Amino acid sequence: MAGLFQRALRLRTALRCLYDYSTLSRSTATLSPVDFHRPFLTCSSEQVLASTRKLHAGAEGSKVSPSAAPERLPFCRVTEEDLAFFRKILPGRTIVDPDLVEPSNVDWLKSVRGSSEVLLRPQTTEEVSQILRWMVTKSTERCLSSHQTFSHVLFSSYSYCNSRNLAVNPQGGNTGLVGGSVPVYDEIILSTSLMNKILNFDSISGVLTCQAGCVLENLSFYLEERDYIMPLDLGAKGSCQIGGNVATNAGGLRLLRYGSLHGTVLGLELVLADGQVLDCLSTLRKDNTGYDLKQLFIGSEGTLGVITAVSILCPRKPKSVNVVFLGCETFEQLLKTFQLCKGMLGEILSAFEFLDSECMRLLNTHLKLPNPISDCPFYIVIETSGSDPTHDAQKLHNFLEDAMTSSLVSDGTVATEEAKIKALWSLRERVTEALTHDGFTYKYDISLPVERIYQLVTDMRKHLGNQAKSVVGYGHVGDGNLHLNVTSPSKDPALLAAIEPFVYEWTASCRGSISAEHGLGLKKRNYIYYSKQSQAVALMGNIKAMLDPKGILNPYKTLPDNLKQ
Amino acid sequence: MAGLFQRALRLRTALRCLYDYSTLSRSTATLSPVDFHRPFLTCSSEQVLASTRKLHAGAEGSKVSPSAAPERLPFCRVTEEDLAFFRKILPGRTIVDPDLVEPSNVDWLKSVRGSSEVLLRPQTTEEVSQILRWMVTKSTERCLSSHQTFSHVLFSSYSYCNSRNLAVNPQGGNTGLVGGSVPVYDEIILSTSLMNKILNFDSISGVLTCQAGCVLENLSFYLEERDYIMPLDLGAKGSCQIGGNVATNAGGLRLLRYGSLHGTVLGLELVLADGQVLDCLSTLRKDNTGYDLKQLFIGSEGTLGVITAVSILCPRKPKSVNVVFLGCETFEQLLKTFQLCKGMLGEILSAFEFLDSECMRLLNTHLKLPNPISDCPFYIVIETSGSDPTHDAQKLHNFLEDAMTSSLVSDGTVATEEAKIKALWSLRERVTEALTHDGFTYKYDISLPVERIYQLVTDMRKHLGNQAKSVVGYGHVGDGNLHLNVTSPSKDPALLAAIEPFVYEWTASCRGSISAEHGLGLKKRNYIYYSKQSQAVALMGNIKAMLDPKGILNPYKTLPDNLKQ
Repeated sequence: MAGLFQRALRLRTALRCLYDYSTLSRSTATLSPVDFHRPFLTCSSEQVLASTRKLHAGAEGSKVSPSAAPERLPFCRVTEEDLAFFRKILPGRTIVDPDLVEPSNVDWLKSVRGSSEVLLRPQTTEEVSQILRWMVTKSTERCLSSHQTFSHVLFSSYSYCNSRNLAVNPQGGNTGLVGGSVPVYDEIILSTSLMNKILNFDSISGVLTCQAGCVLENLSFYLEERDYIMPLDLGAKGSCQIGGNVATNAGGLRLLRYGSLHGTVLGLELVLADGQVLDCLSTLRKDNTGYDLKQLFIGSEGTLGVITAVSILCPRKPKSVNVVFLGCETFEQLLKTFQLCKGMLGEILSAFEFLDSECMRLLNTHLKLPNPISDCPFYIVIETSGSDPTHDAQKLHNFLEDAMTSSLVSDGTVATEEAKIKALWSLRERVTEALTHDGFTYKYDISLPVERIYQLVTDMRKHLGNQAKSVVGYGHVGDGNLHLNVTSPSKDPALLAAIEPFVYEWTASCRGSISAEHGLGLKKRNYIYYSKQSQAVALMGNIKAMLDPKGILNPYKTLPDNLKQ
Repeated sequence: MAGLFQRALRLRTALRCLYDYSTLSRSTATLSPVDFHRPFLTCSSEQVLASTRKLHAGAEGSKVSPSAAPERLPFCRVTEEDLAFFRKILPGRTIVDPDLVEPSNVDWLKSVRGSSEVLLRPQTTEEVSQILRWMVTKSTERCLSSHQTFSHVLFSSYSYCNSRNLAVNPQGGNTGLVGGSVPVYDEIILSTSLMNKILNFDSISGVLTCQAGCVLENLSFYLEERDYIMPLDLGAKGSCQIGGNVATNAGGLRLLRYGSLHGTVLGLELVLADGQVLDCLSTLRKDNTGYDLKQLFIGSEGTLGVITAVSILCPRKPKSVNVVFLGCETFEQLLKTFQLCKGMLGEILSAFEFLDSECMRLLNTHLKLPNPISDCPFYIVIETSGSDPTHDAQKLHNFLEDAMTSSLVSDGTVATEEAKIKALWSLRERVTEALTHDGFTYKYDISLPVERIYQLVTDMRKHLGNQAKSVVGYGHVGDGNLHLNVTSPSKDPALLAAIEPFVYEWTASCRGSISAEHGLGLKKRNYIYYSKQSQAVALMGNIKAMLDPKGILNPYKTLPDNLKQ
């Protein structure tokens, strides 16, 4: 036992240089969009539109990719009358300056770009309601008076306004990875960034109620001062907003311990497509009065309603947190380590993440992050959090001893101080950033039975041969969630054609999910059938048609193009 | 510290006689329906129907209670042709013998009674699908050919078949408390009792997949042999079925630790009203491909679809379980004990339940269960479960020392052996049973902000004065869930009028829920507006109309009578 800790201590010396990077916060270092190139800034809107289509369709593609945007639907275009109305209700917060709108038109990966000319920044639910009400009534009235007869309205039922309304792109922190958070064409961007008030925190129950635009990290700081934590944590936490987290059913690093947002979100306030405010903002842990409507909106990517407020159950802040970084020779050993870990760390296990040696190479090469242990094919990040530092240390000690004496792990290091913990975490969290420096990245976010998750990486490497620059795998072992990434010096349609649909077919053959936590957004919407039965997708379409009959909320996202609505 | 344990030891001697009751399993003692009176068994179906209406309406009531059943909707009546079809697909499992159908017509509380003449016992999803498909097609065709013209069908849209179909009452273990699990009139009972196969258990991920009719306790036994447990536990576990648990979003005793079924259920297979099989039976922990449809059905009380299979994430079996039974002088002290407990027991806390001295009196009087500690106004049951017996005992020790030295608790006893743990648990779990011996019981299942939960009991006592025989409070402090029960020597409309709507108005004034975990069923459907905004209820109606346009699934339940569908 003592030997193990001596070994761990010895290994800690190797971490010294790593600690130099600890000032790079895991939350802000990865997602600041300030360095975007803005090649379209000086273009006219027609040029932007043309470029957008090209970008969406894959500039070099000979055939249209399923992830390409469909044709623009015949929504209204914004008029001066609309702007006058918006300016009246949002004075100083109706943004039309192209330079100021631009960052909201482009996603963090710079992979998709819309051409919206209007960014609205409401501060209250009532303002969101007024905006949407305007879009479905006033603008409709105008369109109707100029274009349609009453008989048109009477006989074309649900769809009569589809071609006559303004479309809306609800936007939180714009940190999504599937093109769900930016407009595709000229949809009005409805940003929740100024809806950033904490409404209430009950220190007895641990229930936090806040507006949708609160940044996740700010909520974490607020709670930590009150001896609580948020039940979710993401690399994007410095930018992402809780409303966006809920709208995309964000998973992240604490899901293993605290479960998904379907369990921790207690209430939502929403504005529906017609401007109606749906108050499901319960703060109760239990409420079985009718259908749990809020669940429908968790993970619906802003296509069913705009989330304006959230109440969420927060766990107590752990009194002790430890992070261990381990190396394994095989993925089988890694899985055995996971099983051992679940048994021996039990209730204090809060994360079990992995990265492969290719990830480590990219971290070394592009971010100059050194490997704190000796080179291994696989690395594990384990986090424990508990209420008694002595007990936690002892559990961890026992586990490490077992793991090392049984040769499941070949090397490792332990961190208990905050700065060191952050440094170890950054090895896992900054893989995404390292990949952006490696070239154009094809990203896949796959759920699989846990024993299969690395097989996909191995098979993909074999399948691609030397077509790809790097093929890397990392992710949340505890949740059966693999992030498979393939890089290339530049966009490469031939490479893409080799990856897809191979990756989706492989996943479907194991009844996996082609999007574990990123959602479908624009990019993956047409791949939904790989993971969902056609009857289920048809039912989703019915729900969309019921809640947003005019299809104005985040069009072109989540649902496939071939769906009848 | 040693003093505390000596004190606890001394108190254990008081438990000796209690252990004699440990053979009364907490799971089977409370919910066996074998002793039902069957006053209607020899009646004709007309007499049954008349009696049913009277019972639902409140026999002695001068005006119709909101919990009374509405008029029978014009569903078809079962014909010989229907029976021939059912017998063909369910040979020997189409039950029409009134003696055999009877237990499924009456709820466990004997408070509501239907008059169904047919009980179907399918074994497979395909059989359920065939049954429902028959009901919406064959029986419709027959009705249409005899009663309706084609133009009727064409022009009355959604509602054209409402008056021409057979209605269905999906039934699991029939342990519900709000009249949701039995027919109201002559709905065909579709029992899942023979759908009791375990389909798969993945010992790496802990995901169990099984048919809907598996009895909760059987699943627990199965899992415990494999070092896992179910994430939910109820007093009714010896009878209730997992499908019914999911359909009612059952809460129970482990919710504090493992969260609600919205978080732990990973997949559902359902048969929709038209017989279509909806396969959402994922076993993945994460899947963000489109809307999470299964969530809609969790807690929908069989009104949107019939659950035929469930996959659920199961926690590891804890290596150590301890139960403490404590006494407090005031509810304020009890709440402070809860706060202390959350902080000191942290991740090993798995239940924090309470009962008041009136509950203890009923346990003593009706079930001869003695109080294991000295008399106190309030009693707490705390359960810990963890992975290290030594650590758990030490955490518990430290907590108890703090709680007793700060005079938060005035007496207590500890159990670590299984039989003793069961005996202590039975004090909490058998309150429901004790109440049934005390007289006619008016039951309320309320969610409130945790600091308000006992105020309602106190206010109710003041409000009722000597009108009631007993007014008792118990429940899940950790979840803010109060079970308020009022007994009377017999049914008493005047007492009921004094309780309702007082209890609902009181609850609504705190933004509480008038049904925390029991659901709305038949009895509470019309009270939904006390906890849900009218727009939300209207949206529920739209969802019902979309999924079950003919309204054949569990009619008269969950949604209020005045809702347009």
